[in-house]
Amino acid sequence: MAAPVALIQGASRGLGLAFCKHILKNKSPAVVIATCRNPDGASELKALSAVHAGRVTLLGLDVDQEQDIRSVSEVVSQRFGRLDLLVNSSALLHPSGKGETSLRDVSAQGVISTLTTNTVGPLVMAKYFAPLLQKGGGGFGQQPEDKSKHHSGIIVNITAKVGSIGDNGLGGWYSYRMSKAALNMATRNLSIELGRGKSKVLCVSLHPGTVNTDLSRPYHKNVPKDKLFSTEHSVNCLMSIIDTLNISRTGKAYSWDGAELPW
Amino acid sequence: MAAPVALIQGASRGLGLAFCKHILKNKSPAVVIATCRNPDGASELKALSAVHAGRVTLLGLDVDQEQDIRSVSEVVSQRFGRLDLLVNSSALLHPSGKGETSLRDVSAQGVISTLTTNTVGPLVMAKYFAPLLQKGGGGFGQQPEDKSKHHSGIIVNITAKVGSIGDNGLGGWYSYRMSKAALNMATRNLSIELGRGKSKVLCVSLHPGTVNTDLSRPYHKNVPKDKLFSTEHSVNCLMSIIDTLNISRTGKAYSWDGAELPW
Repeated sequence: MAAPVALIQGASRGLGLAFCKHILKNKSPAVVIATCRNPDGASELKALSAVHAGRVTLLGLDVDQEQDIRSVSEVVSQRFGRLDLLVNSSALLHPSGKGETSLRDVSAQGVISTLTTNTVGPLVMAKYFAPLLQKGGGGFGQQPEDKSKHHSGIIVNITAKVGSIGDNGLGGWYSYRMSKAALNMATRNLSIELGRGKSKVLCVSLHPGTVNTDLSRPYHKNVPKDKLFSTEHSVNCLMSIIDTLNISRTGKAYSWDGAELPW
Repeated sequence: MAAPVALIQGASRGLGLAFCKHILKNKSPAVVIATCRNPDGASELKALSAVHAGRVTLLGLDVDQEQDIRSVSEVVSQRFGRLDLLVNSSALLHPSGKGETSLRDVSAQGVISTLTTNTVGPLVMAKYFAPLLQKGGGGFGQQPEDKSKHHSGIIVNITAKVGSIGDNGLGGWYSYRMSKAALNMATRNLSIELGRGKSKVLCVSLHPGTVNTDLSRPYHKNVPKDKLFSTEHSVNCLMSIIDTLNISRTGKAYSWDGAELPW
């Protein structure tokens, strides 16, 4: 069987970079397509590519640009012809770097920019890569005995617990919360459309915990040390979930510990 | 006590227009501020204004333009100094007029346009009108005996059952579903921020049923006749809910029949 192919979007740093490292280290012979806005400046990805010769393909992609996504999907189609896993990782808290504390901080442009990257980007990724995931070999997740329930590919949208409407008791962070709630709806819709037919693609939202990344950096001082995960630890947890995914678990949101999150 | 003041956004047709008619007919002496993109072309609103002399203020407002919203909030502040009810009514299914049947129909620009009008618009309305709602006299809804639980104003975001992630069993309509899920998160966030302190503003999402409007027109042939509501009937139902709202019911989504909707 051909080596599984994973595409990690937003791979130059944070969770995306940790997904690349994890797959290269633990999922051999799987290969990684790593996309980010500026591959020339992605020194860690370049170093990974040098260490894991032939297993890393680095491509430039700005998730805000539909044309970029389309172009990269054509390159991947030509070079690989299929995909087993798509992880939509890149996200921003707000263009200012800080989530809105109150309505005073809300601006139309701030919300739209956040929604464009966090919500529209992952959905448009799914649009262009779904045909390749439908040709995937099911190299990630768990296949049940019943062959009619096998999946060909998996889409992982990185969500956040603060994107759960039902769980929202604190408020604030308007743009980010709204973007993740809408992303969860996209996950649900994708799971329905892509769960039909012979070549099933399953789609889940995963909450990585509070992770030591640039996104959460302004808030680290408020997080108890044992609740602030390294990207490596978070991705270990998330890959444990991905390893046990099958089609019966599609269309839901799971936390890093495996618990299902309310919408 | 001064006459209650209601602002209906998206008032030139559909549900918004029906809200204006209902309030003018059944809630005297309440006054109505009716906003729409093109007041000059809003013949029905002009006719209403002529019949209900002194009770209708017609103002131009494009919910996609933050500057418009800010300007109108300044006019309302000067003329009325407060607000008792804000109804965010305008919405589109998709710029094309048809919801996406599948991923093939999804475009970044289509999703962004839909989110801008359906989601960002209502939130930015809340931003600029919250200070006026906090000065409201609680002229809509029901006030409990305990004065510490009285509300000064109400924000109603018109949502849709298809915006419920948990209820989504059919898929499709990506842009519209995502916009309403994100709007429900906005409702939840607003209810938290504006439910604090002395001057409480309550905020709910209301599902009007499938209503005979331009938005749903392409789909009317698929709707059983007794399930396709007139705007008048739908607004009768929604106003019955609004009439019984109090602060304990804030931050939730309700259907036209009063049932709480899952997120």
